[in-house]
Amino acid sequence: MKIDQLLTELTIAEKISLLSGADFWHTEAIERLAIPALTLTDGPHGVRLAEGGDLEGSQPATSFPIEALAAASWNKGLISKMGKAIARECYHYGVNVLLGPGVNGKRSPLGGRNFEYYSEDPYLTAELGTAFVKGVQSQGIGTSVKHFVANEQETNRMVVSSEVSERALREIYFYPFEMIVKKAEPWTVMCSYNKVNGCYMSENNDYLTKVLKEEWNFKGLIMSDWGAVADKVSSLQGGLDLEMPGPGKADQQALAAYQKGELTLEIIDQRVRKVLELIAKSAAEKQQLNCDFEENHKLAQQIAEEGIVLLKNEAEILPLQTSDKIAVIGKFAEEPRFQGGGSSHMTPYKLENPLTAIKRIAEVKYAQGYQETGIDKDLLAAAVKVAEQAEKVILFVGTTEMIESEGYDRKDIELPTNQLKLIKEVARVNQNLVLVNYSGAAVNLTKIDSKLKAVLQAWLPGQAGAAAVANILFGQVNPSGKLSETFPLNYKHNPSYLNFPGNINSVEYKEGIFVGYRYYDSKELPVKYPFGYGLSYTKFEYKNLELSHSKLKNGQDLKVAVEIKNIGERTGKEIVQLYLQDQVSTVKRPSKELKAFAKVNLKPGESKVVTLTLVERDFAFYSEKLNDFAVESGKFTILVGASSRDIRLTSEVEFDSESDLQEKLTVKHSIERFLNDQRTGAVMKNILQQMGVDNKAAIYPIILGMPLQNLAMFEFAPDDLTEIYHQLGIEE
Amino acid sequence: MKIDQLLTELTIAEKISLLSGADFWHTEAIERLAIPALTLTDGPHGVRLAEGGDLEGSQPATSFPIEALAAASWNKGLISKMGKAIARECYHYGVNVLLGPGVNGKRSPLGGRNFEYYSEDPYLTAELGTAFVKGVQSQGIGTSVKHFVANEQETNRMVVSSEVSERALREIYFYPFEMIVKKAEPWTVMCSYNKVNGCYMSENNDYLTKVLKEEWNFKGLIMSDWGAVADKVSSLQGGLDLEMPGPGKADQQALAAYQKGELTLEIIDQRVRKVLELIAKSAAEKQQLNCDFEENHKLAQQIAEEGIVLLKNEAEILPLQTSDKIAVIGKFAEEPRFQGGGSSHMTPYKLENPLTAIKRIAEVKYAQGYQETGIDKDLLAAAVKVAEQAEKVILFVGTTEMIESEGYDRKDIELPTNQLKLIKEVARVNQNLVLVNYSGAAVNLTKIDSKLKAVLQAWLPGQAGAAAVANILFGQVNPSGKLSETFPLNYKHNPSYLNFPGNINSVEYKEGIFVGYRYYDSKELPVKYPFGYGLSYTKFEYKNLELSHSKLKNGQDLKVAVEIKNIGERTGKEIVQLYLQDQVSTVKRPSKELKAFAKVNLKPGESKVVTLTLVERDFAFYSEKLNDFAVESGKFTILVGASSRDIRLTSEVEFDSESDLQEKLTVKHSIERFLNDQRTGAVMKNILQQMGVDNKAAIYPIILGMPLQNLAMFEFAPDDLTEIYHQLGIEE
Repeated sequence: MKIDQLLTELTIAEKISLLSGADFWHTEAIERLAIPALTLTDGPHGVRLAEGGDLEGSQPATSFPIEALAAASWNKGLISKMGKAIARECYHYGVNVLLGPGVNGKRSPLGGRNFEYYSEDPYLTAELGTAFVKGVQSQGIGTSVKHFVANEQETNRMVVSSEVSERALREIYFYPFEMIVKKAEPWTVMCSYNKVNGCYMSENNDYLTKVLKEEWNFKGLIMSDWGAVADKVSSLQGGLDLEMPGPGKADQQALAAYQKGELTLEIIDQRVRKVLELIAKSAAEKQQLNCDFEENHKLAQQIAEEGIVLLKNEAEILPLQTSDKIAVIGKFAEEPRFQGGGSSHMTPYKLENPLTAIKRIAEVKYAQGYQETGIDKDLLAAAVKVAEQAEKVILFVGTTEMIESEGYDRKDIELPTNQLKLIKEVARVNQNLVLVNYSGAAVNLTKIDSKLKAVLQAWLPGQAGAAAVANILFGQVNPSGKLSETFPLNYKHNPSYLNFPGNINSVEYKEGIFVGYRYYDSKELPVKYPFGYGLSYTKFEYKNLELSHSKLKNGQDLKVAVEIKNIGERTGKEIVQLYLQDQVSTVKRPSKELKAFAKVNLKPGESKVVTLTLVERDFAFYSEKLNDFAVESGKFTILVGASSRDIRLTSEVEFDSESDLQEKLTVKHSIERFLNDQRTGAVMKNILQQMGVDNKAAIYPIILGMPLQNLAMFEFAPDDLTEIYHQLGIEE
Repeated sequence: MKIDQLLTELTIAEKISLLSGADFWHTEAIERLAIPALTLTDGPHGVRLAEGGDLEGSQPATSFPIEALAAASWNKGLISKMGKAIARECYHYGVNVLLGPGVNGKRSPLGGRNFEYYSEDPYLTAELGTAFVKGVQSQGIGTSVKHFVANEQETNRMVVSSEVSERALREIYFYPFEMIVKKAEPWTVMCSYNKVNGCYMSENNDYLTKVLKEEWNFKGLIMSDWGAVADKVSSLQGGLDLEMPGPGKADQQALAAYQKGELTLEIIDQRVRKVLELIAKSAAEKQQLNCDFEENHKLAQQIAEEGIVLLKNEAEILPLQTSDKIAVIGKFAEEPRFQGGGSSHMTPYKLENPLTAIKRIAEVKYAQGYQETGIDKDLLAAAVKVAEQAEKVILFVGTTEMIESEGYDRKDIELPTNQLKLIKEVARVNQNLVLVNYSGAAVNLTKIDSKLKAVLQAWLPGQAGAAAVANILFGQVNPSGKLSETFPLNYKHNPSYLNFPGNINSVEYKEGIFVGYRYYDSKELPVKYPFGYGLSYTKFEYKNLELSHSKLKNGQDLKVAVEIKNIGERTGKEIVQLYLQDQVSTVKRPSKELKAFAKVNLKPGESKVVTLTLVERDFAFYSEKLNDFAVESGKFTILVGASSRDIRLTSEVEFDSESDLQEKLTVKHSIERFLNDQRTGAVMKNILQQMGVDNKAAIYPIILGMPLQNLAMFEFAPDDLTEIYHQLGIEE
C-alpha cells in the first residue's frame, strides 16, 4: 500500500470518513482506492464477533479466564500463548485487531471492571500485558491496549475527570502503557472515556500526543473507546486518530473546521496516515494459521489451573480424596459465572460445569442451595440435609452478574446475602467446608472465615474453568496462583475509600502512588490476604540470595540470584517475588515495590537458582523536581519472598546516582535540617557551638525548629547572618 | 480612654509604633498621651512571666495540667475554674493578657505541640476552649486564642503552607476559633506562623479580615505569633493588628508605605483602634482579686484527677491496696515530666513527685530503673530485684523532653528504648505490672500491652499531678477521664501519615475532614484505644433514650434525654457522649461526629437523666455548593455512648431542611442515577419500559452506566432526546 500516494488521491471528505468507523466493528473502506475495511473486535478474554452494539449473539469462540485470573498465574509464557490462541481465532473470524488487553489500575476493589484488568501493581500489569500483546501480534493480529488512562471506575466514566498527580500517573497509571508501548509496540492504543485533570482523554494533547506519541515514541494508532469522542475537532487536534464506532456523526464538523482553517490538512493527514498504516500492517503481517478450538480449550484450562488461588487450607483438607464422602452445594456448581459482563461478554465455544467435572473424578451428592437472588428455604433445607450426611462439603459461591459488570461499580465486596446464609446454615452441620469462590475481584471473606477449612479463589475462570477447579480440589493439579490484588479485611480500609467514586465532575486520586499493597504495607495495615499470596500443596525453601553488585551506578544492571527448593512431597510451582525498598528518600516512597518475579516448577527435593535482573529504572521514582524518572543515591533493600508479606531473604545494594535529587537547602530550612543534612551537619554544629548555644536549654528545641533566616532574633546570633550563610554554602 | 480623640492626637510614627510590641512581652506605651503598656504572657497551662526570649527563670506560678489532660476531663466547669485561677495569678504578676488557649487540631500524633491542644475533635476543643476563655475573661484578664490557623505541625512551621480544603477548614480547623469567637468573645486571637493555601496567616486577608473579623464578627485584636510577621505592610493590609514581639524592625517600611500611599491611614487607624480598645478594655475590666497559690495547687490536682485516663485494668488490679507489697520503679516516679517544652514551659509554684505522694499512702520499695537516655545495666538489675520481691509493681515511664516539645515533631510514638527494655525485664519477674505513662500525646502501647495489667495515662499532669496519680492508683479518687484523642494501634495508621509533615513548601491535608476518629471509624480501622474511651472503678448503665422530636425543621433544637445509672459499688463520674450520623448524604460525611456530651457524678445505685441539646448547625456540613453550612434533608442517627466505639443507645430523627443541597441532575448523569433518584426514578423507569429496554439483557449494565445524553446511540432510543429531558425535568 502506497500511503504517500493515497494521501494525494483521497478527497478531504474521504480522509475524514476514514477517521471514524464504518459501523460498530469496522473501519471505513474506500473502494475506489482499494482501501479495505478492518474488523476490530472485543476483547481481552476471547474473540467476540458480533453484529451492532448488542452484547449477545456473538460467534462462538474460546472464553479464556479473565485477566484477573491470568494475572494470578504470574506466568508470562502462558499469557503469551493465550494471546497467540486468541489471534488464531481472530483469523478464523476475519478479525484484524483485538480490543485488548485492559491494563488499567485497580484503585478500588469496587471498580466494576477490575476483572478485566491484571493487577493493582503496575509492574506486574506491564509484564503480563507485554506478554499478551507480543503473543497476539506475533501472529499478525493487532492489539489495542486500553483504556488510556486513569479509568479506574465505571461510575460517571463518560464525564468524570480523574484528578491525578503527575507522579501517580507516571509511576502507577501510565507505567503499563509506557512499558507495553516500549517493549511490545502495540498496533493500537485505545483512549478512555474519562477526563484526566480536566481534559477528555479523547482530546488530551498532553497525554496522547506529547507523552504517548512523542515521549514514548508510539508509532501505532490511537482509537477512541466506543463513544468516547466528546468533540470531533478537539479529538483530532489532541492526537486521536480513529473515532469508534462510526459512521462519524461529527464528520461535518471536522470538514467545516478544516474549511475554516481551524483544523489543518497536516493534522488530518497525520491521522489518516495512522489508519492507512494500520490497514497496511494488517495486510502485510497476515499469516495462514489454523485455529484449533479444542486445543484452545485445553490452554484455557491450563491458564485457569495456574491462576486459581488457594487462599486457605487448614489441616490440609485439600486435596480431597476420591474416597471422601463429599457433598457439592451451590447453584454455581451447575451454572458457574465463568466470564464477566460487558464488552468481554462472549459466546463460549463450549462450556462444562464444575459439578460434571467433579463427577468425572469422584462420586458426590449435590444440592443447589440458592437461587440467583432471594432466600429459598426449601433449597436451603435440602442443602443442609446433604451437608449433614457428608464428610466434606464443597460450597460453590460467588458474585452474580448484577453485582459485578462493566457499566457500574460494586457497592461493597460482600457475597450475596442468600449465599452467606447458605454458608452459615451448612457450617452448623458440617465443619469440613471447602469454599470455591467465583468473582472477578476480591470479596469479603473475613466474616465467614472461621467457618471455612479451605478457600479456593476461582475468579471467573472461562469456559474450561470447571475442570481446572475439579483438578485442583482433588490434587490432579497443584495450585500455583498468587493474588495480583490485595484481599482486604474490609473494603473501607482501601486507600481510595473516602475518595471513590467522587462526584459527577471529578474523582480525586488523593492516595497518589499509594495504591494496593503500596498503601497497606506502607501503613502497616492488616489485610485478609496480601498481594502476591497463594498456597500450594507443597512447600518451598528460599536460600542463597546473591547480588551481582554491592554498589551500582547509573546504567548498570543488578542480577539477583536466589535458590528455591521444593521441600514438600508434590511437584509444584513457586512464584518468586522481588521487592525493592528505598531506605532513605527525599520523597515518600512505598515501603516496598515489586520489581521482578519468576515462576519456577520444582519436583519434590529439586532446587533451582532463579536469576532476576533489575535495571536503573527499577530504582527510580518520578521526580517532580527533574520532571523525569531518576534514582536517588543511597541504599536499597532487596526483599525476596513468597508474597509481599512473606519476605524470606533480604540484602542491600548501594546506588551511587548522578541525578541530583537532594533538596537544595535555603535560608528557610530549619536549624535541625542543617544539622541533620550530611552536606551541612558538621558546619552547622560548629556554628552553634561557637555561638555558645546550650543544647540543654529549654529554648533549644525551639531554636532547632527555626528557619535559619530567623536565627537573628536571638541574642547569641549576629544581626547579619551573611557569614553564616556563606559557611553553609547557601544563598541568601 | 477616648479613643477617637487619641487617634487625632497620635502622630503617624506613634501609631505605627503601637502596632508592634515594645519588647518581648509588652505593648508600646505612649507616655505623652498616657497610653499605658500591656503585659502579655504565656501560656495555656499557667502564667510564665519572664524577661526576654529565654524560657527559663520565669516567676513561680501554678503549673496546671497540660491542655491534653484538661481535655480528657471533659469537664467544662473545671476548665473554667482553671481559667479563673490563672487569671488571678495574672493579676498577681501584673499580666493583662494570657497567651492561650491553644485550639489547633491534632492532625497527627507526631505533632510536637499536641500536648498543648485539647483534642482531635473540633467540637470538644470548641467547648473546652470556650469554657477556658470565659473563665479567664470573667476575671478581667484577656486571652489570646491561638494559633489561627491550620498550624498542626512544628516542622517548617515558619515557612510551610498548609494546603487545606475549604470544607476541612470550616468543619475542622476553623470550628473551635469560630465557636470561641461567637460564644466567648476573646479579647485577642493569635495568628499562626504558617501559610494557609499559599498565604502567610499573618497577612491572610481572606481568613483574618473576611472570615474572622467580618464573617464571625470578631471585635477583638489579632496579634501575631512571636516572629510570625513576614512582611509588615502586607500584614497590616491583611488584617493583623499587633505584631509581636517588638520593637517593630519594619516600622520604617510601614511608614514609607504610608508616605507612598500604599498603606492608608484608614487601615492604620483601624489597627491602632484595636490596640487602644484592648488597652481600654483591660483598664475598664480590671478587678481587685486575691491569688491563693495553695488553692490553685489543689485545683490543679483536681483537674489532674479528672483528666488522667485509666486505659486498662485487668482483673481489677487497680485500685491498689495499701496492704499490697508494692514496688515503684522508674525515674519518672522521682522526677516526673509534669509539663511540656516550649512556650508553656514555666517555673512551678511548688512540685511534688509521685514517689513521695505514694509513700504518703502506702509503704513501697523504689528502684530508679533507667537514666534519661541509654541503658544502665546496674539500674536495670536493681529494678528487677525490687520487682521480684513485690506483689505488684508500679512502673513510671514516659516521653522525655527531647522527644516531645514545641519546636519539632515526634519521629514516632514509641516510648524511649531504655524504658521499653525496663518494662520487658521487669515483666519477666512480675506479672502484676501497673504502667503510669507521662506523655503529652498518644504513645505506642501495642507492643508492650500483653505485659501490663493496668495502664494509667497521666499525660503531663502539672505541679500537682503526683498526688492525683497516687490517689487514683490507691482508689482515693475514682478515675473519670476519657481520651480526647485516639490511641492508634500504629501511628502509621493515622490519616495524615503519608502526608505529614510535607516538604519545606507545603503540607497537603489530603485526609480533609477525616481526622482522628472521623477517619478510623469511617474506615472501620482497629485502634488501640478509641476516642472518648476511659475506664472507671465503677460501671454505668445507659437507658431510656428519649428525643424531643422525631422530625425537625430549620431553626428547631432537639433535646436528647438519657438516663445514666451507676451500677457499680463506688461513686464515679461518667462522660456521656452524643454522636450524630447522617444516614444518607450527597457528600461523604464521617460515620459519626461528636455533637454533645456531659459529665455526671453518680453514687452507687444512683441514676440521673442527662439532657443534651442539638441545634441546627450540629446537623450541618459545609457545602461547597452553597458556600455555607447547611443541613440536608433526611434521617440522622443519634448515637449515645461511653466512647466513640461503645455506643449504648441509638435513635433517629428526620430533618426536613429548606436548604437545597440535592445535586442538580444533568444530561451527564447516568441512567442509573436517574433511576435511583427519588425525583426522577419513576419517570426514568417508565421511559425505559416504553423503549422496551430489557433489564435481563447483557447490555443492560452498560446502559445503566451511560450518561443520559449518550442514550441516543442505542437503536431503541430516539435520536432526539429532548422529549425525554423534558419528562425528567432537566435542561439540555
